[in-house]
Amino acid sequence: MTERAPLAPTRRTRLTRSRERGRTDRAELDALLDAGALCHLGVVIDGAPLVVPTVYGRDGDTLYLHGSTGAGNMRAALAGDVCVSVTRVDGIVYARSAMHFSMNFHSAVIHGRPERLTDPGQRLHALRVIVEHTAPGSWERVRPPNPKEMAATLVLALDLTEASVKVRTGGPVDDADDIAAGGVWAGVLPLRQVFDPPVSSADLEPGVPVPDSVLGRVAVTTV
Amino acid sequence: MTERAPLAPTRRTRLTRSRERGRTDRAELDALLDAGALCHLGVVIDGAPLVVPTVYGRDGDTLYLHGSTGAGNMRAALAGDVCVSVTRVDGIVYARSAMHFSMNFHSAVIHGRPERLTDPGQRLHALRVIVEHTAPGSWERVRPPNPKEMAATLVLALDLTEASVKVRTGGPVDDADDIAAGGVWAGVLPLRQVFDPPVSSADLEPGVPVPDSVLGRVAVTTV
Repeated sequence: MTERAPLAPTRRTRLTRSRERGRTDRAELDALLDAGALCHLGVVIDGAPLVVPTVYGRDGDTLYLHGSTGAGNMRAALAGDVCVSVTRVDGIVYARSAMHFSMNFHSAVIHGRPERLTDPGQRLHALRVIVEHTAPGSWERVRPPNPKEMAATLVLALDLTEASVKVRTGGPVDDADDIAAGGVWAGVLPLRQVFDPPVSSADLEPGVPVPDSVLGRVAVTTV
Repeated sequence: MTERAPLAPTRRTRLTRSRERGRTDRAELDALLDAGALCHLGVVIDGAPLVVPTVYGRDGDTLYLHGSTGAGNMRAALAGDVCVSVTRVDGIVYARSAMHFSMNFHSAVIHGRPERLTDPGQRLHALRVIVEHTAPGSWERVRPPNPKEMAATLVLALDLTEASVKVRTGGPVDDADDIAAGGVWAGVLPLRQVFDPPVSSADLEPGVPVPDSVLGRVAVTTV
């Protein structure tokens, strides 16, 4: 893994709450982004926020996003800052008092002004990164985008410079009095995502095997 | 389940892309919200979006959120519209061409101006709804919030009137030419969240059993 500069807080990424949960190791950001299935992309339209889930991919210091040229959130992403949030829930934290219930999680929040890619080679590279993130080992296996598809697709590059990572792990943090009182179960209920065996498409002709790149994901816990 | 009016599209919730994936059955919104572990809350700060994960709870036509009175996104949520996004990824859709890769998902997007709850009874009710959503069966089992905790907590109520639900299910939708060409595997790799066995807190005294409300969630697929 390439050694990268630690995450330096900006006005927007400096944690104001639960600072001890902050992470500044750039490798933690990369690992979380690479393991996630989708992000939540926030934009501002007419002064109000819009948050929608979408796929993405990372290459080095760049997060790639894509969408239809006609999508409202894509047009908004070209007109101003965006916020990309990638979250993994690791467990539900059961405490001895109502206000100490919590979640264990890994969370990345990225701010920035995305760049619209126009260079055909860069655009194709970005789409490859997104497809390979979503479905590793697939790009070389399938038909590449044709000119019509490329023309209908907006490809955005977002620099990962302004990002924060927040992590909560471990059991509940209860008040001493509640622990001393006793008698109330407390702990963590772990949560994780699993892949189930692949389901071939109904229109798939007989005799086409499921690729190893797909089979290899089954029974592998997404971390 | 209470019969509710269907979701009526507004300027913000009318789908402009993939309209066939839209759902107007209010019960679908409720089911998705009730099954989700957390939402992504979007606000606008200094003209830029901020999207962070947070827990929530639903009661009838109201979504409840809470946070520290000192949290920046909570203060922003009091000053303007918010957008709450709840997403469940159901599978990765492998297509025969790069641009037809997709995700199967259930997605709810809610817009509105949240109301800050000030009535002590309403606030306590909202917190109960949030805790019971995060950890069903827990509220009566644990110590309720004390005055100090209540004073440090902002409780928001968001009306579910302006919401949209989008669902993608099924296999890839490939071009006829790519299907005819043959030889490329296509299908869906299902993805789901599972609970693993609970881990009791290290500071839990011996002899306190894991509640049935916790044990009952293990091996139950979150839908």
